[in-house]
Formats: sequence, C-alpha cells, structure tokens
Amino acid sequence: MEQKGRIYVVGLGPGNREYMSMRAIRAIEDAEVVIGYKTYIDLIRDLLAGKEVIDSGMRKEVERCHLTLDKALEGKKVALVSSGDAGVYGMAGIMLEIKDERDEDIDIEIVPGITAASAASAVLGAPMMHDFAVISLSDLLTDWELIKKRLTCAAMGDFVVALYNPKSMGRVHQIEEAREIMMKYKGKDTPVGIVKNAKRQGEEVIITDLEHMLDYAIDMLTVVVIGNAHTYVKNGKMITPRGYQR
Amino acid sequence: MEQKGRIYVVGLGPGNREYMSMRAIRAIEDAEVVIGYKTYIDLIRDLLAGKEVIDSGMRKEVERCHLTLDKALEGKKVALVSSGDAGVYGMAGIMLEIKDERDEDIDIEIVPGITAASAASAVLGAPMMHDFAVISLSDLLTDWELIKKRLTCAAMGDFVVALYNPKSMGRVHQIEEAREIMMKYKGKDTPVGIVKNAKRQGEEVIITDLEHMLDYAIDMLTVVVIGNAHTYVKNGKMITPRGYQR
Repeated sequence: MEQKGRIYVVGLGPGNREYMSMRAIRAIEDAEVVIGYKTYIDLIRDLLAGKEVIDSGMRKEVERCHLTLDKALEGKKVALVSSGDAGVYGMAGIMLEIKDERDEDIDIEIVPGITAASAASAVLGAPMMHDFAVISLSDLLTDWELIKKRLTCAAMGDFVVALYNPKSMGRVHQIEEAREIMMKYKGKDTPVGIVKNAKRQGEEVIITDLEHMLDYAIDMLTVVVIGNAHTYVKNGKMITPRGYQR
Repeated sequence: MEQKGRIYVVGLGPGNREYMSMRAIRAIEDAEVVIGYKTYIDLIRDLLAGKEVIDSGMRKEVERCHLTLDKALEGKKVALVSSGDAGVYGMAGIMLEIKDERDEDIDIEIVPGITAASAASAVLGAPMMHDFAVISLSDLLTDWELIKKRLTCAAMGDFVVALYNPKSMGRVHQIEEAREIMMKYKGKDTPVGIVKNAKRQGEEVIITDLEHMLDYAIDMLTVVVIGNAHTYVKNGKMITPRGYQR
C-alpha cells in the first residue's frame, strides 16, 4: 500500500529551542521533508539529519507551499516551518489556500507556537494583561489605508497594541505614521516596549514612551508594544494592570 | 550562604503536555514549590513529585501571588502556573504588581506559553493570518462600557476578533451584546469559529457565522473567533487570507 503523505505547518516559536513545543519538535522529527525560509531552517538544523531539506529565500511563500503540497502528494510527510505561531501572519493560511485552490485531499495539521507578541511581553514584564490588538505595519500585502484605519481603531479603543514588522530597510515611514496616530488618542507618556529578537539570541529590550520611541533602533526583527491608558513602568518592567488591585 | 529565592510565572499553554514549552517544563522541575488554580495543577500533577504543591480555588489570584512571594522570600524557587500564556490575562501582571507593592527584590521570570487564541486558530484552520484583536468579555474586573467600546472599535477596524471568557454560568448576556455590536459592522455571514478546550482533552469545534453563532453552546472554556471581511470557510476550515494570492 502506498504511504499517504501529510503536511505539518509548524510554528517554531521565538527561535530558542526551549520555547518550541514538544508537538513542534515531534512533527519535524516525523517529517521526511522539511521546507522553510533559510533563517528558520537554520534554527532547527540539528533536527534535520537524514531528511530532505529545502530552504528558500524570503517572499517565496507561495512557491514553498506548492512544493510542500507536491512532496506530500508523492506520499511524503512534510513539515513546513515558520517562526512564531504558524497561524499568526505565518504559513498556515497560504498553505490551506493553495491546497484548496489545487483541490487536493491531504491532511494538514497546523502546529501552533508562541507568537512574537507573547515572547516580547514576557521580556517586557506584563504589558498584554488586558485586551490587545496585533497589527502588522507591512504594506506589501495590505493597503496602507486599511492599516492606518486599524491603528486608529485600536488607539480609539484604548487597546494595548503590538506592532509586527514595524520597519524594514525599504519601509521606514510606517512606524512614524503609526506613532502619530497613537499620539492622537494615547498620552505621549504611554509606555512603549521595543523588543528585538525576543526570547532568542541577540535579545535587546528598550522601555520608553510614545514621545521618545523613535529615538531607538527599530527593524523587522523588532516587536513594538504600546500600552493602554493604565499601563505603567516600575522597576524596569512594563505592566498593564488587569484590575485585581482595585 | 542562604539560597536566593526566585519566581517563575509559567504559562502552561492550552493544556496538553505536548504544547508546553521545554522552558515551562524545566521551570516547574526546578521549582521547590508549585502554586496554582487546582485545574491547572492537575494538568502537571506528574511533574510535582517531591515538591510542595499549593492549589487553590478560582478568583484567589491576589492571595496566590502573595503566597508565591512569601515562599520565594524564604529562599525557595517557586513556580506560579497559569493556563495559556501567563502574559495574556494570566498571572504575570498581578505577580509583578504585588512584588512592586511590597517593594521586594526578587527575580521573576515570565515563561510565555501558547495562548488560547493561537490554539483555537490552529484547530479552526487559519483565521488569524491578519490583524486581530483579543478581547475578554468578563466584566468582573473591567467596566462593561469599556468592553463594548473595544468591541465596537475592533469591528469598525475589520479586525479578526478573538473573544476570551465569552460566557459563564452567571454571565450570559455579554456574548449576545458582543454579537449585536459585530453585526453593525460585519456581515451576518462572517465566519465564526467556536472552539471549546482547544488542543486539549474534550476539544469541540464549530464553524458557523455571525447570524447563527448563538445557536451553539458557548461557555468559559470556549474561545470565539470572528473573521474579518475576507475570511471564508472551505473544506471545513476557516481561513483569513493575507493577500499572497492577489
């Protein structure tokens, strides 16, 4: 009998092995083929002995999913890896879309992971103890007008706001506009946490405020967490009270 | 020399061991005292041999944190456990608040976990591939008017919305009002995922829409995920496209 292929879409979490789930590790161990963006493949290189490994460059997401499906249809078990949570701006959606588009019947298991906002929060203290919004500032795939509308709504609702993909080499004004929108509704002394490489090698943490946040280095490996009206900083930690103490 | 105590605030993830991180397991193994709400303690009972275990009832959060700090000040290593991500409506914030209030100097490590929205998303397909808001419908610690304002803002911004604590025995109207607010801005055929016990024993999954969501059982173990204007359902999965296919 022919072996039936299957697909795991695996969230690796922040990057350090110890924040991966056992399920993620087992899915990779079970896979015969492992596919992903090179930076993520490098994080799990030691798990890949004897496996077919296909790493590719950035922005090849669609291609990677087609390849994953091709391999699975050959009867292979394939792990498509993604950083953070595969279900939060990760590979889960596009993989399911391509499976549906090609109308193939194959098992796909989405293995969730710790998303960057959770990792950044743990480093900062406890900024996400209350309602929060997660917004990507990348306008490669989303109209900037819609992103600005979401920033406005999140600020109006006094959400804690976690910004993903805040800035890249060729994309610098979005974080400035995002800050301007936040300043319309949030005080300029609202705490802001800037975390680069949260819970992985090269971790850098800054706690500042809306007024001064642009004085610090922000790049595509950074998550920016902006507090709500009750967020405060004490002993180097950023805390959003939930209300237990009232 | 006296041993210096320390505190781990540990997110256990959805509940199944395989979705815990190694860091969470090691923190519990390292701890001499483990403190938590009984339901969560039961999830890790096999890791607790030889340790002092203090389980307590619901709504004893403040008490549990004081006890954690007391034990740590005696020089013990203490793990305070919480489900999901300790930093998302978990114990991280209140623990830091109480440490600051009592002005004690003790190391606190927040160990992040997979939050319920990530677990629910993985079960549903890929509903959180784009900007999302997480809102708790519990008005025990938050004014209902503020929660309604956040629901309105999240709906206006066309966020994917994950509702935590949607309903309890004594709190039933909030989910109805939340749905009404969503219906003002989102189409009645907007996909809605209802996941009980995501990624743990007793998992139940419903995919429906805004119009019909109240026809299904929703309780405090349930997370409700409401799509954005582009979310669709295909082959039993709920998918929010990010835009790769355009």
